[in-house]
Amino acid sequence: MLNRVRSAVAHLVSSGGASPPRPKSPDLPSTTSAPPAAAPETPKSPPARPGSESGASAKTVETRASFSRPTFLQLSPGGLRRADDHAGRAVQSPPDRGRRLPWSTGYAEVINAGKSRHNEDQACCEVVYVEGRRSVTGAPREPSPSQGLCFYYWGLFDGHAGGGAAEMASRLLHRHIREQLKDLVEILQDPSPPPLCLPGTSGTPGCSDSTHLTGPQSCSSSQKEVTHESLVVGAIENAFQLMDEQMARERERRGHQVEGGCCALVVVYLLGKVYVANAGDSRAIIVRNGEIIPMSREFTPETERQRLQLLGFLKPELLGGEFTHLEFPRRVQPKELGQRMLYRDQNMTGWAYKKIELEDLRFPLVCGEGKKARVMATIGVTRGLGDHNLKVCSSTLPIKPFLSCFPEVRVYDLTQYEHCPDDVLVLGTDGLWDVTNDCEVAATVDRVLSAYEPNDPSRFFFLPSPLLSPLTCPECSQTLLKLHPSADVSSKLVSLPRSFLSFRFIHTRHLPNISMKAHWHFTSTHLNPLFSP
Amino acid sequence: MLNRVRSAVAHLVSSGGASPPRPKSPDLPSTTSAPPAAAPETPKSPPARPGSESGASAKTVETRASFSRPTFLQLSPGGLRRADDHAGRAVQSPPDRGRRLPWSTGYAEVINAGKSRHNEDQACCEVVYVEGRRSVTGAPREPSPSQGLCFYYWGLFDGHAGGGAAEMASRLLHRHIREQLKDLVEILQDPSPPPLCLPGTSGTPGCSDSTHLTGPQSCSSSQKEVTHESLVVGAIENAFQLMDEQMARERERRGHQVEGGCCALVVVYLLGKVYVANAGDSRAIIVRNGEIIPMSREFTPETERQRLQLLGFLKPELLGGEFTHLEFPRRVQPKELGQRMLYRDQNMTGWAYKKIELEDLRFPLVCGEGKKARVMATIGVTRGLGDHNLKVCSSTLPIKPFLSCFPEVRVYDLTQYEHCPDDVLVLGTDGLWDVTNDCEVAATVDRVLSAYEPNDPSRFFFLPSPLLSPLTCPECSQTLLKLHPSADVSSKLVSLPRSFLSFRFIHTRHLPNISMKAHWHFTSTHLNPLFSP
Repeated sequence: MLNRVRSAVAHLVSSGGASPPRPKSPDLPSTTSAPPAAAPETPKSPPARPGSESGASAKTVETRASFSRPTFLQLSPGGLRRADDHAGRAVQSPPDRGRRLPWSTGYAEVINAGKSRHNEDQACCEVVYVEGRRSVTGAPREPSPSQGLCFYYWGLFDGHAGGGAAEMASRLLHRHIREQLKDLVEILQDPSPPPLCLPGTSGTPGCSDSTHLTGPQSCSSSQKEVTHESLVVGAIENAFQLMDEQMARERERRGHQVEGGCCALVVVYLLGKVYVANAGDSRAIIVRNGEIIPMSREFTPETERQRLQLLGFLKPELLGGEFTHLEFPRRVQPKELGQRMLYRDQNMTGWAYKKIELEDLRFPLVCGEGKKARVMATIGVTRGLGDHNLKVCSSTLPIKPFLSCFPEVRVYDLTQYEHCPDDVLVLGTDGLWDVTNDCEVAATVDRVLSAYEPNDPSRFFFLPSPLLSPLTCPECSQTLLKLHPSADVSSKLVSLPRSFLSFRFIHTRHLPNISMKAHWHFTSTHLNPLFSP
Repeated sequence: MLNRVRSAVAHLVSSGGASPPRPKSPDLPSTTSAPPAAAPETPKSPPARPGSESGASAKTVETRASFSRPTFLQLSPGGLRRADDHAGRAVQSPPDRGRRLPWSTGYAEVINAGKSRHNEDQACCEVVYVEGRRSVTGAPREPSPSQGLCFYYWGLFDGHAGGGAAEMASRLLHRHIREQLKDLVEILQDPSPPPLCLPGTSGTPGCSDSTHLTGPQSCSSSQKEVTHESLVVGAIENAFQLMDEQMARERERRGHQVEGGCCALVVVYLLGKVYVANAGDSRAIIVRNGEIIPMSREFTPETERQRLQLLGFLKPELLGGEFTHLEFPRRVQPKELGQRMLYRDQNMTGWAYKKIELEDLRFPLVCGEGKKARVMATIGVTRGLGDHNLKVCSSTLPIKPFLSCFPEVRVYDLTQYEHCPDDVLVLGTDGLWDVTNDCEVAATVDRVLSAYEPNDPSRFFFLPSPLLSPLTCPECSQTLLKLHPSADVSSKLVSLPRSFLSFRFIHTRHLPNISMKAHWHFTSTHLNPLFSP
């Protein structure tokens, strides 16, 4: 459906797929002031931290690849070619040697099944240090190395219509989050409620005048209570929006280099809480003592039908006279004029009959079911980043107004629950969930880990090859999904045993009838960061 | 907050509160063709059915009361005066003598605590017969008395800013539902999937030509599946919309006679399923074997914040330059210009800081918390019927565009569950839920019914006075809520024992600090209609 050729990504991705040196400062303009969020500074490279990207012992490969893979895969030129082999569909995961992913994260991906020229997906796994801005509350600040904050970050970016957006998001979204958190470094570490007001930014009245600070003590008692947690949620939400706006500007400047769009599923671990932000149709679950806790929901034309229809109803100019905001069970045919057909309006969850009129012959804004559901007959997801130039096929009508860059953020407080060694967090793009489900994943986790003695340290170590406990393909009973426990060496340093799995999704080329895209996932159960700030 | 005096309701309500003779045909114009729903006919009086309103043995009272109460209360002039006594706050429930409510329904109400001149709430309880239209599928129709459908109907209408809307809704909403169901009489009784298309209405091509019927068999195989259930949901949804449109027309024609608005919580039992439709802040729960099953959710400025903000963002003209769609923890003050304050935009669930600009000094579209939350500083509910003339205080800015007349409909399939004799459905307006909660209600149900022997037939009979098992007021430990089992005599006819409760909400005038409004509820556990069509 989205058959746009991603071109010139190599211009943006200057050094190929295998461990390109990360830019010290991203070759991107600063995000200018964009209301209503405060203008962030140009994202800067984070200071080197243990386990962060700059601490990786990756080799630099000079080959300019036609597509790039996540740095942490440390792909050699041969590995990159294998990763680009549609016929072989090799499973890629981080090598046993060298640097491992923080927090005992496992990862695996496989190329898609020919839907696009390259694997358009990307991933990111970082430990990000946030240095506080000059005291935001105006109070004198004591210089102290502990004043910064550290967050762990995992991101899956399921690209479409080109790989540029996913590439950009995997490089920059966590930096936007860091920018948004900079103002909050002091506030989040202060147990008192967040101040209602902060002094203005540089150049605005009150910037350096601490008397302008309006703390909760000086506010009306009828003000709404705002939690620290909701500040982190707001920071992530605004980071998504600023990332999307930056893509729009880059799209203007660089054209096809920032082609396409991507779903974004990211996890931020900060101060004891896990924030899962999802914009698209990827999915995150926590498996806790065999119980499944959904940490996201999918945003598709079906789940967001009423939002889309409402927008088309309120802003009919966005439909360009080509689409109707009404939904019908199928396309209305001219011969059905005057008859009454089943329909749904934006306020309805049920169906009713309406007399077919001329404008009902337009194509429905939302059509199709399940994996075939589409907005404007074009795109099957309704949230994500990018897509600023996405047009209706054979038309100049933009689709972007119907897409939302805002994630839904769910929060999981790690300190509120008892966790057993087999508990994991699994993130997967739709390619994974198309062929398995939450229960199967939970059962597989249980099956694999129970094969070890509880105190067997090897269950927490990275194993070089997939273990058993395969899931079989429902079509042909062939091995479909394998998983294996893996571990960061640092896991031995924490007191409680922790488990972590890396899924391996192996679908053979003998099953071309199952749509399969690359998938990714990370798992983690560590309750404490390995690298505290 | 809404202190409009309802005037001239007596003109609409021609014969006072105590069992007024129901109009044979409501003194209201037909609903003209209003896209997208098909135009209904003028609602007509339903044919007399056992247990329906026209079968009631109510006395006609000639007194023109200044306010009216539901017919089934059969209030005498003295009872009407007591019902209007703000000081006494007598609990009103149907008399033991005479006609009882269908399906062993219990009911109780109490006047509000002086927030308005009269009790602005209304209620309705009916058995409604739906006669099918001339064969809608075009097939020859065999005349048969069994071709009609019967549904049971309960409605609570929590009025505000005048009693006209609640009055009108209690008289007409079930008739709009009946109109919407007329086309579906044949379809709902046919186990095959609903036809995609029906012939056009009278005067339109294909009306009488059965070859225009496009059944599922002649449709593309890619069409969406539509269930019978979703047709009933759609019928209820459109009935709400048409009811609201009719109120708008009446408001134009009759002015203050149709003043105000109302929350609407209605239940339709049809063909084995219970449909609970809620537009407002009333609440329905099912208590099944001690378990609470929520059958509605409340629509308030807090729960619908993002819908309201989105509308203000997309249609800023609706804010009239007086309001901002952004939310702040409290009203922004001019001296805070240039500082950064916490805010939420329509896409955010979290909070962030933004620099305060001039337009942020406008009043927030959504403000306040809990019971004090308001849209445009005026109204505390965001869905319901009426309010077509509601304006922002000291302004001409209409509030109606932000209110939705569409209900959320939840479906409960009675045939899918085992029910014990103590299972009930409870409907209550916010006055009930402000002072008690789901668990307390469930516990009280259990406490009262367990005081009887399981086979004691008296547990299913209406008792003339409140029984024990009081809930105590959290403020003063005084008796607050009493309930008693009641029964329709017909319950003896059904094979399984059924229970039914009528709550009595007794709040004394010694507790003026607790806001209290009239409340209502119905309970039912009958799995089969008493009066099958």
